[in-house]
Amino acid sequence: MIRFFDTTLRDGEQTPGVSLKPEQKLEIAAKLASVGIDVIEAGSAAASEGERSAIRRISEAGLSSEICTYVRALPGDIDLAADFGADSVHLVIPVSDLHIAKKMRKTREQVAEMAFSAVTYAKERGLIVELSGEDASRADQVFLRELFTEGVRCGADRLCFCDTVGILTPEKTAEFIPPLAAIAPLSIHCHDDLGMALGNTLAALKSGATCAHATVNGIGERAGNTPYEELVMALEVLYGYKTRIRKEEIYHLATLVSRLTGIPLPVNKAIVGEMAFTHESGIHAHGVMREPATYESVQPETIGRKRRIVLGKHSGSASVEAALEEMHYSTDENQLREIVKRVKKLGDEGKRVSDTDLMAIADAVLAIECKPFIRMRQFTAVSGSSMIPTASVTLVVNGQEITGAATGDGPVDAAMQVLRKSIADVADIRLEEYHVDAISGGTDALVEVTVRLSKDGKIITSRGARTDIIMASVEAMIAGMNRLLREEHEDRGKNPR
Amino acid sequence: MIRFFDTTLRDGEQTPGVSLKPEQKLEIAAKLASVGIDVIEAGSAAASEGERSAIRRISEAGLSSEICTYVRALPGDIDLAADFGADSVHLVIPVSDLHIAKKMRKTREQVAEMAFSAVTYAKERGLIVELSGEDASRADQVFLRELFTEGVRCGADRLCFCDTVGILTPEKTAEFIPPLAAIAPLSIHCHDDLGMALGNTLAALKSGATCAHATVNGIGERAGNTPYEELVMALEVLYGYKTRIRKEEIYHLATLVSRLTGIPLPVNKAIVGEMAFTHESGIHAHGVMREPATYESVQPETIGRKRRIVLGKHSGSASVEAALEEMHYSTDENQLREIVKRVKKLGDEGKRVSDTDLMAIADAVLAIECKPFIRMRQFTAVSGSSMIPTASVTLVVNGQEITGAATGDGPVDAAMQVLRKSIADVADIRLEEYHVDAISGGTDALVEVTVRLSKDGKIITSRGARTDIIMASVEAMIAGMNRLLREEHEDRGKNPR
Repeated sequence: MIRFFDTTLRDGEQTPGVSLKPEQKLEIAAKLASVGIDVIEAGSAAASEGERSAIRRISEAGLSSEICTYVRALPGDIDLAADFGADSVHLVIPVSDLHIAKKMRKTREQVAEMAFSAVTYAKERGLIVELSGEDASRADQVFLRELFTEGVRCGADRLCFCDTVGILTPEKTAEFIPPLAAIAPLSIHCHDDLGMALGNTLAALKSGATCAHATVNGIGERAGNTPYEELVMALEVLYGYKTRIRKEEIYHLATLVSRLTGIPLPVNKAIVGEMAFTHESGIHAHGVMREPATYESVQPETIGRKRRIVLGKHSGSASVEAALEEMHYSTDENQLREIVKRVKKLGDEGKRVSDTDLMAIADAVLAIECKPFIRMRQFTAVSGSSMIPTASVTLVVNGQEITGAATGDGPVDAAMQVLRKSIADVADIRLEEYHVDAISGGTDALVEVTVRLSKDGKIITSRGARTDIIMASVEAMIAGMNRLLREEHEDRGKNPR
Repeated sequence: MIRFFDTTLRDGEQTPGVSLKPEQKLEIAAKLASVGIDVIEAGSAAASEGERSAIRRISEAGLSSEICTYVRALPGDIDLAADFGADSVHLVIPVSDLHIAKKMRKTREQVAEMAFSAVTYAKERGLIVELSGEDASRADQVFLRELFTEGVRCGADRLCFCDTVGILTPEKTAEFIPPLAAIAPLSIHCHDDLGMALGNTLAALKSGATCAHATVNGIGERAGNTPYEELVMALEVLYGYKTRIRKEEIYHLATLVSRLTGIPLPVNKAIVGEMAFTHESGIHAHGVMREPATYESVQPETIGRKRRIVLGKHSGSASVEAALEEMHYSTDENQLREIVKRVKKLGDEGKRVSDTDLMAIADAVLAIECKPFIRMRQFTAVSGSSMIPTASVTLVVNGQEITGAATGDGPVDAAMQVLRKSIADVADIRLEEYHVDAISGGTDALVEVTVRLSKDGKIITSRGARTDIIMASVEAMIAGMNRLLREEHEDRGKNPR
C-alpha cells in the first residue's frame, strides 16, 4: 500500500508569506489525519517558538497519523523534536557536492559523519528516523547509496530521495530509484519548479518507492511540492490503484488549507481549482448536460464538489435554456435566440454574466415589466481615523420610504448591515458570501464584487463593478435583493402577466 | 524543430468567466508572435460577433505567426474562418464512441463523413487544415487511424490528438502516438484534469508528435491546458532541447495574459508564480545567497524575472542581516540575534514582515529614536450614491500642521490622493503599486493592503491590515512615507546619532 507523507505544515508553510499559528496547524493536522494521511510533518522545531508549540499540540492531540518533524543533523534539533513529542524525524542531509561544498562548506566525509551521528542520536532518543538526501537528484548516486546503506546500519528506519530543485525527469527517476529502494523503504519528495513534481512522483512509485511526500494544493517552497490531491486521483483514476484516502474530503481539506494559509486556490488547478468542474462553452456545457463523462474525467461528487454551468460569450442555447428554466422562465425559440445573443454580447464586453444579469436580459426580451421592489434614494458611508465606520441609506421598498443607519467593521460592512437592516421587516435576506477579486495595479482599478444572497433557501449570485469598492458592494446587494424579492413561484415568459 | 501552437485565445479564453475584447486579443497575439509562437489559435469564429472581429483584426495585423481558428465540421463555421481572414483551421471532430453517441447522437460513419466533407470544403476555401480528433484518448485507435488516414487523403495538412478530459498517461501516450505520427505531422493537445498535461505532452513529443498545443499560464477549460512556459523550460533545462522561444519574454507575456484575462497567476505556479523565485526559509535563503543554484533550477533572469528574499518566521540570521545591510543598518551579533527573534515572533503571529516592519524592529533593538516625520491627526473619507468620493486629512509634517482634501475614483483612491498631495511640498512620493489580496468569506474579514512607494528611485514596501479597507490603505501609506522621509544616507546602528 502506498503511504502518504504530508508536508503541508512544513514545506508547504515555508511558502514565503505563509505563517500558521499553532491552533491553525492543529486544525489542519486533525483534518489530514481524518483524511487518511500516514505521516504528518508538523513543522521544524528549530524554526521558532510558535513552531515548537504547534508540534507539541499536534503530538498530544492523539491523532491516528505518525507525527514527524524536520531536523537538521544537529543534536539540538533532534532534542527539540523529542522534547516536543514527535514520533519521528525527517532528518535532512545535503548530499550533492554543490550543497555540500557551497552551502555547507564541508566535505562529503564530514557531512556523512554528521548524518551517522545524528541518526544514532535520534534512535537513542527513541525517534523513528527517515533519513533524507537533500538535492539527491544532483548527487553522485554511488556516494548516495553508500551514505544510505551506512545510515540504515546506524538505525535509520526509512530513506527519502529529495528532488530539491525540481530537476528530475521520469526517465532519470526510473534510473535512480531502484537501487535505493532496495536498501530500505524509500520516500520520494519532489518539487515543481519545472512542472514535473507529479510525473516524477508517479515514476518513483512505479520504480520501487513506497511513500510519497506531498502537500495539500501543492503549496511549498518556490513552485511548491507534489499536490497530494492530484497524486491520489491520478493513482486511482489513471492507474487503477486504490488508496486509503477518503476522497470525499479532498475539497474540504483544500479549502481549509487555502483559507488558513491565505494562498488562494489557483483558478485552473486540477481537482481543487474553481474552474475544475465549471463549464461555460456551448459545446462543453451541452455535452456535460447530456452526459457528464464527455467533458469530465472525475465526477465532482467523488471529491466533495459540485458541477457548475456558467454563462458567458461562449455559451450556447442549451445552457442558457437550462438556466432560464431553473429561474422559472419559459421562452419560445425566437425569444431564446435573442436572449442568447444578448448574453454573448454582455460576454463580449468582458463581463461575467451573473444570475441577475440573465434575469434582466430575460425580462427585457420577454417584455416583462419588472418594477424594482427596492429603489435606492441615497446612500452615504463615512469612515475615518477616530470614528466608527457608519453608513446611511434611504430605500423605497414597495412604495414605502425607509431611512436607516448602521455601523460596521469597515464602511463596506456598515453598508451591508444597513441594507439588510432596512429591509428586515420585509424579508430575511442573508449574505452567504462576499467576494472581491484581488485588486492590483492602482487605486483607480475596477473593483468587482460578487455576493451570494439567500432567502428561505433560495440562493442567488449578483455582481457589482465600480472603481469604488463600497458602491460596487451596494450595487451588487441591491440588484440581488431585488431579484430575491420578486414573487418566486411565478412562471415567467410567453404570456407575461 | 518542435512547433508551438498556442491556444490561449481559444481554449484559454474558454475558461469560464474570461472574456477578452478584440483589442485585448490583438495585444496578446502580437506578443505571442514576438515570443516566437508558430501558430496562434485566435478564437472560434462561430462563438460571437466579438470573436469574429478579433479574428479579423489579428489576421490583418501582419504577424509572423500562422493565424488559426477553431471550427466544427460545419460549412458555416469554415466560411466564417475564411471570410474573417484566418490562415488555417483547427477542425475538431469527436472521435470517441462516447462523444459520437452521447454528445453528437450520431454514428462513427456519419461523423467520419462530416469530417471528410469539411476537410474537402476547407481546402477549397484555401485554408490550411489541422484535423483534430476530440477525446482521442478514449477513442478506438483503429477507427482513429483510419479516420486520420482518409482525412489526409482528403487534404488535411496536419493532425492533432486531443486528450480532451486529461486522462492520458505517459505510458498510454507512448503507445498511441507513433502510428498516428506516421500518417502526417501530428500535434498533441493535453488537458490537466489529473495534473498530467505537461508530462503527457513531453511523452508525445518523444514519441513522434512534432507540435505542442499549449496556453500561457496553462489557462483553459476546467483545469486548463499544458502551460507553454513550463513546456519550454522543461524541454530546455531538463532535456537539453533548444526551442525558438525568446525566453526572456516569458514573464512579461505571463503577466500580460493574467492582467487581461483577470486570472491571477497562481502563487506557487512553476516559472511564473509569485513565489517561484522567492525565498524565505533560513536554510534556503542562506544557500541562495551563497550560490543561487543550490535552490534554483532556472536563473530567474533567463525568463525576465528577479530573485527575492523575504522575511518571516522561517528566516535565518543571514537573510535578516542582508536586508538590514541594504537598509544601512549595522548591528553586532547580539543585536542581530534579537532582531531575528523579533522577526520570527512577528511571523509566528501570522504576519508578513514588510520593509517597514523590519525597520521598526531594528530601530527598537538599536534604540534609535525615530520620531515619525509625519503624524496623522485626523482622517475622514466619505462616499455615497450622489457624491464624489472625498477624503480629508490633517497631518503634522515635521512639526507643521497641514490639512487637505481630495476627491478620487473611490474613497481609497481619494485617501491616497490627499495623503500624497498633503506632503507634495516636502517630497515627491509616488505610489508604484497598490495591492489587496482577494477578500473572501464575509465583509468583516481582515483586509491586507500592500503598497510599494518610491522617492527619488528608492523603493519601499509597506503593509496595513484592518477590517476597514480604507484605513488599512492609509496605515500602509503613512508607515511607508515615514520610512522614505527619514534621512536616507545615514548609517544606522552601533553608534546611533
